[in-house]
Amino acid sequence: MTTEMHPNRWGDPAQAAPLPESTRGLVELALGVRDTPAVEEVALPAVGLPDEVLAELRRLLGDDHVLTDDEHRRLRTRGKSTPDLLKARSGDLADAPDAVVRPGSHDDVVALIDLAVRHHVALVPFGGGTSVTGGLVARREGYAGVLSVDLGRMKAVREVDKVSMTVVLEPGLRGPEAEALLAAEGLMLGHYPQSFEFATIGGFAATRSSGQSSAGYGRFDAMVMGLTLATPQGTLEVGTSPANAAGPDLRQLALGSEGAFGIITAVRVRVKKLPETKAYEAWQFPSFDAGADAMRHLAQNGLMPTVLRLSDEAETMLNLASQSDVGGDSSGGCLMIVGFEDSINRREPITAALEELGGTSLGEERGAAWAEGRFHAPYLRDSLLDVGVLVETVETATFWSNRDALYAAVKGALTEALGEKSLVLCHISHVYETGCSLYFTVAAPADDAPLEQWAAAKARASQAMIDAGATITHHHAVGTDHKQWLAQEVGEVGVRILRAVKAELDPTSILNPGVLIP
Amino acid sequence: MTTEMHPNRWGDPAQAAPLPESTRGLVELALGVRDTPAVEEVALPAVGLPDEVLAELRRLLGDDHVLTDDEHRRLRTRGKSTPDLLKARSGDLADAPDAVVRPGSHDDVVALIDLAVRHHVALVPFGGGTSVTGGLVARREGYAGVLSVDLGRMKAVREVDKVSMTVVLEPGLRGPEAEALLAAEGLMLGHYPQSFEFATIGGFAATRSSGQSSAGYGRFDAMVMGLTLATPQGTLEVGTSPANAAGPDLRQLALGSEGAFGIITAVRVRVKKLPETKAYEAWQFPSFDAGADAMRHLAQNGLMPTVLRLSDEAETMLNLASQSDVGGDSSGGCLMIVGFEDSINRREPITAALEELGGTSLGEERGAAWAEGRFHAPYLRDSLLDVGVLVETVETATFWSNRDALYAAVKGALTEALGEKSLVLCHISHVYETGCSLYFTVAAPADDAPLEQWAAAKARASQAMIDAGATITHHHAVGTDHKQWLAQEVGEVGVRILRAVKAELDPTSILNPGVLIP
Repeated sequence: MTTEMHPNRWGDPAQAAPLPESTRGLVELALGVRDTPAVEEVALPAVGLPDEVLAELRRLLGDDHVLTDDEHRRLRTRGKSTPDLLKARSGDLADAPDAVVRPGSHDDVVALIDLAVRHHVALVPFGGGTSVTGGLVARREGYAGVLSVDLGRMKAVREVDKVSMTVVLEPGLRGPEAEALLAAEGLMLGHYPQSFEFATIGGFAATRSSGQSSAGYGRFDAMVMGLTLATPQGTLEVGTSPANAAGPDLRQLALGSEGAFGIITAVRVRVKKLPETKAYEAWQFPSFDAGADAMRHLAQNGLMPTVLRLSDEAETMLNLASQSDVGGDSSGGCLMIVGFEDSINRREPITAALEELGGTSLGEERGAAWAEGRFHAPYLRDSLLDVGVLVETVETATFWSNRDALYAAVKGALTEALGEKSLVLCHISHVYETGCSLYFTVAAPADDAPLEQWAAAKARASQAMIDAGATITHHHAVGTDHKQWLAQEVGEVGVRILRAVKAELDPTSILNPGVLIP
Repeated sequence: MTTEMHPNRWGDPAQAAPLPESTRGLVELALGVRDTPAVEEVALPAVGLPDEVLAELRRLLGDDHVLTDDEHRRLRTRGKSTPDLLKARSGDLADAPDAVVRPGSHDDVVALIDLAVRHHVALVPFGGGTSVTGGLVARREGYAGVLSVDLGRMKAVREVDKVSMTVVLEPGLRGPEAEALLAAEGLMLGHYPQSFEFATIGGFAATRSSGQSSAGYGRFDAMVMGLTLATPQGTLEVGTSPANAAGPDLRQLALGSEGAFGIITAVRVRVKKLPETKAYEAWQFPSFDAGADAMRHLAQNGLMPTVLRLSDEAETMLNLASQSDVGGDSSGGCLMIVGFEDSINRREPITAALEELGGTSLGEERGAAWAEGRFHAPYLRDSLLDVGVLVETVETATFWSNRDALYAAVKGALTEALGEKSLVLCHISHVYETGCSLYFTVAAPADDAPLEQWAAAKARASQAMIDAGATITHHHAVGTDHKQWLAQEVGEVGVRILRAVKAELDPTSILNPGVLIP
């Protein structure tokens, strides 16, 4: 498959397709449809970067790696949130970078940062372009220009340590590229966010990504043993050991820094042996509460499978309705997916526990169907946008005792904002001993100002998370979209710490300005 | 037992005892003995704090909680490293605080910080007083005085959430106090550093402590879900969820901050159900390498017991020699302790793996003997200091592939510095998928300037750790003793980050000045 996404849709352009007629009928019934094609004729703002800066960039990186043509600039404009897509579909490319630059090494990145400081040019690190929180939309005002720093040339596996089970990866490796190189060594990372096919190692680290197999392999930040961060004040290199007591853990300050403190040029990650067996099983629980309690029981009793996710009643109903080809019936309840990758020795006690807790196995066929389609949902969003249906997701996390209150608050906020006709679906896809994530998918008839329509709904949902004492984001990062609520989540002192670190490392604020730091 | 330690020895004063005659004979043979009693008549420096500050402190906290008598000041002078003990034994109390103050609440701590800023008084948070890295030795120069902030009145369990399996603990709870309060709820923390009997929750968090059951229950920093940090710029409260992507993890910046960024006034920790069964088994491996490889195999294959530790050949020989009462023979090899607390279902596969990897079970009797004496080693140090034998520990961690090189480098450095007559023992007590800790115990005949003698040895060992690419400390923290090497470990950029955060949160540097930040 290609590694360049469609400029105004998710994913591989070859997979862009209209909504199937049968689905269109269902959507028409539920939400109404109104054909809303994207504007394909678009005009980019002129390149604003001074000629002497472009010339210096070309001397530094070579002509092939300083791209100012419309096509490249368009492909590096914003990320893939629904607002990003709505803007792209309407022909708004105001956030296009002046140029796309492609450093080939840590030293190139260091030189690029030096140049950016001297000419006061904003740098936006670009991995897979899959941000859904406005992480690729730097502030332009006051800068000589904006450069998209495409890390796609930095794709090496720099070190393989099979004794320690760690590897050092360069930031531009996309998920499948990293896994293919590791598989040749009999190794794997096991990090499968929905953006897996396009997102990169650097992006996973910079945004604290979490993948669909987090129950078995952990979040990306938990996999990171060390990293290299190029900053305007020099390079931070941390990671002398799996864990230590040598003061605050600076790895955890670089992880989640979203390009605002520096550009990550290498990551040392923990790896696993390739699993010899994989099995995904579907389970039915009588209710979301019962399923969530079962998940909690597994997590608190050391019975974690590799994949563990649970849809609420609404999401289950919709999934079953759309998966009639895999034998779905509408017997209700909630669908759980339980995946085992080389954790087969835990399958027996996990199965016994799930049965004890009220679950009924639906077998491996539906589990396999989930695994087959696990990266596909974003394509459906584009097809729905084509027919005037607004689709977007928000996600959060909390401790178990607060799960139900948070669920009700966010679902209520979204429904109130988008109207009774909207659909609000939810699933739990990341489970810990002390709590879990909640991931909401929303569909509603788009009105004439869908950007404002969604902004209002997002604001209400986000405030509901804060008011419930939960996090503003479990795995989508802060970007520009969550800044306002990050300030509420970490408080004034937390914001002061972030600003102080930013001011120290990037005193002229050329690194992804406007992103992350409230 | 008492919770106040002897002023110039480890632990409960009632347990202070001369070296048993049999051991003294052995030590005389190996190292030579020279009776070196502690000076018991000591003089404290005069209280330097202005009267108006003392008066304000008394108005704030009450007369009972502002203590300037010799006894209290002596008990709050420094920690329990061998250099700390040597100074105390020689009558040097130059680092005594001017007063010991005992805040009873978060608000008291906030008010105390405010007072300290206004009068430029240095604050040294005091939990159990067990620091072995000079963490309780604040810089005095330029300050109106130094206050020991004894958190021993803050001992509440503030919240018990049995659904989420978290509790909120106040910082002054000592290990056994916290466990007793939790046990009444059927819960446990499972954090047993060697300092367990005296050290506190706040200290565990501030120093990134790791306990003897870290294989099963994790390091203390991994248990922390949230915390409250009182700083001169306001209070940081973090921990909305088990994990999130809301920017850098500020919990991990407060953990390990050693009182230099703020005073921790509450910690939300993950808890476990009390185990119904406990068993500790001793195993013998033919060599340190073979035992370490077996540990690595367990960690990399999801077969972790609750306790997992391995002594090298020298430590094994010494342990067996001193444990003749539990049936020790000198058949050589290396002793491993494998503990199971409610992890009995993993005992069978772990046993099979250990046998496959060359281990021989020595049964539960010796395992029980280890568990019985697990907090006792520091008492022996005092008895050895009494007879002129210098005893101290250093510890580090690295990735598995670097273990042997690090072991050789540190052991070589210590032996070269302390002479061929010195004993250098080592064990691995903390095991991860990607690496492990190394904990060295050293015994050598003290010369006439034992402080300088040890400082030289410590410097060589520390530089060997840095040169080997390992950490300067796996679980003893930075204090004042490791600052120089911390700068080498995290580099110039890392130091700048720490200084920037310090300057932001504590601009007049009244919080544990001189500690942590290079």
